[in-house]
Amino acid sequence: MNEMTVSAAAGHTDVLVQGAQAARGQIRSGAYTGQTSALGPGIVQGNVAVLPGDWADEFLHFCRRNPKPCTPIAVSEPGDPMLPELGDDIDIRTDVPAYRVFMDGKPVAETTDLHDWWRDDLVTFVLGCSFSFEHALVQAGLRLRHWDAGTTVPMYKTNIETAATPRFSGPTVVSMRPFSPADAIRAIQTTSRYPSVHGAPIHFGDPAAIGIADIDAPDYGDAVEIRAGEVPVFWACGVTPQAVIERAKPPLCITHKPGSMLITDLPNSALAVF
Amino acid sequence: MNEMTVSAAAGHTDVLVQGAQAARGQIRSGAYTGQTSALGPGIVQGNVAVLPGDWADEFLHFCRRNPKPCTPIAVSEPGDPMLPELGDDIDIRTDVPAYRVFMDGKPVAETTDLHDWWRDDLVTFVLGCSFSFEHALVQAGLRLRHWDAGTTVPMYKTNIETAATPRFSGPTVVSMRPFSPADAIRAIQTTSRYPSVHGAPIHFGDPAAIGIADIDAPDYGDAVEIRAGEVPVFWACGVTPQAVIERAKPPLCITHKPGSMLITDLPNSALAVF
Repeated sequence: MNEMTVSAAAGHTDVLVQGAQAARGQIRSGAYTGQTSALGPGIVQGNVAVLPGDWADEFLHFCRRNPKPCTPIAVSEPGDPMLPELGDDIDIRTDVPAYRVFMDGKPVAETTDLHDWWRDDLVTFVLGCSFSFEHALVQAGLRLRHWDAGTTVPMYKTNIETAATPRFSGPTVVSMRPFSPADAIRAIQTTSRYPSVHGAPIHFGDPAAIGIADIDAPDYGDAVEIRAGEVPVFWACGVTPQAVIERAKPPLCITHKPGSMLITDLPNSALAVF
Repeated sequence: MNEMTVSAAAGHTDVLVQGAQAARGQIRSGAYTGQTSALGPGIVQGNVAVLPGDWADEFLHFCRRNPKPCTPIAVSEPGDPMLPELGDDIDIRTDVPAYRVFMDGKPVAETTDLHDWWRDDLVTFVLGCSFSFEHALVQAGLRLRHWDAGTTVPMYKTNIETAATPRFSGPTVVSMRPFSPADAIRAIQTTSRYPSVHGAPIHFGDPAAIGIADIDAPDYGDAVEIRAGEVPVFWACGVTPQAVIERAKPPLCITHKPGSMLITDLPNSALAVF
């Protein structure tokens, strides 16, 4: 690379981050309360789970035992709403477009500001999402069937149990993308670079081998066509920790509203390990 | 790593290289003329092809166009029998246990010393072999069916044509190893680190998709069992360039005798790109 291309590349990342910060500003002000999928292209978006301190330590242990579905990209200090690991000025109380509040596992409120709910023992977990690795797959020249169809990726409960802690347990949920074998090999290489956003697939081929009875009937999202010569490829999915927390019914839990995630200052490439 | 483990690791590589050099000394002296598979464990072994200068340049172009089956790990200067890329004192005329000499595509001699055949235009190509990536697969905790069976890996001609040059052409030959999907994913990751020894697989699953009519009837080597839940995984194979050269019938070509390869000074890990 000569100096001009280095400078152009740096400029590109700056533009991405400026776009992310502008979007987050709109969200913080309350001007934007919708879905984030089209915002901050190339930028890491995060799933959010806020838990009381006496549940947070155990959830961190659960994450450590189940890194493929549940690697946090940031964990806050107790009571501190800021997330310096993800950007200079990210306040979890205002910077997500919309939140859902659960008490004892039941939804009790939907809000766009957490100031009224904040407590000095709350711990924020931000979990990476498949947007980051899907961006890398598309950059690698692969096509995603659910992108082409304009639908939500199909997700399935499996017979692969997560490694439980006393209060957190449940099945691993996977997302599925069909590829030709050659593209599947490329997809395995590409996603292996992103261990914090589910990394390499955990299975390909026969759905029954991981307890999926009907590939055309996903538990979440929409079914996609699997064409002749293609194989379904299965990745651990961020719905896993959501389902595990729902099942654990902590006295208080706050999440992002599905589809309305936290936009960070990190370019997706920042998550690549090589 | 603390200093003691660094030193132990350095010592380990030293021991490997010393073992390789001792084996090569026996070979150079003529004391050993057999197979090399059990010699120099953890050390890169190479397939050898020596070609006249007016064929060598074109063969190098063929290799560049077909990197998965044919990436040389060393190419000599014309007429120079030494291979400094592979070790301090490697003389291709004496350091392979046994050679085969072909003229116009026909075998004309088998020898243990090339001094009588050497010419000042000859160029040596050393091509990596699957021993290096198989070593990495086993180090990664995977089991190889043909190792367990004590047989030669099954190899197949495919319908994937190599990218031809005027005199070199022919089908890609693949080797096959069966794995469970989870192990296949690990095998794809592991072999992706070794692009100079065939790298990632080029196919898995349906053999017919790459023109293999009967998986139980390999064109070279021995068939292996594919168990329930396993998929065949196919890598580009070093037999490809051998078959391509045979077909091209150069006036002179010298190869190692099958199974009796060049032992280098490089640990297998030296071929890993990350």
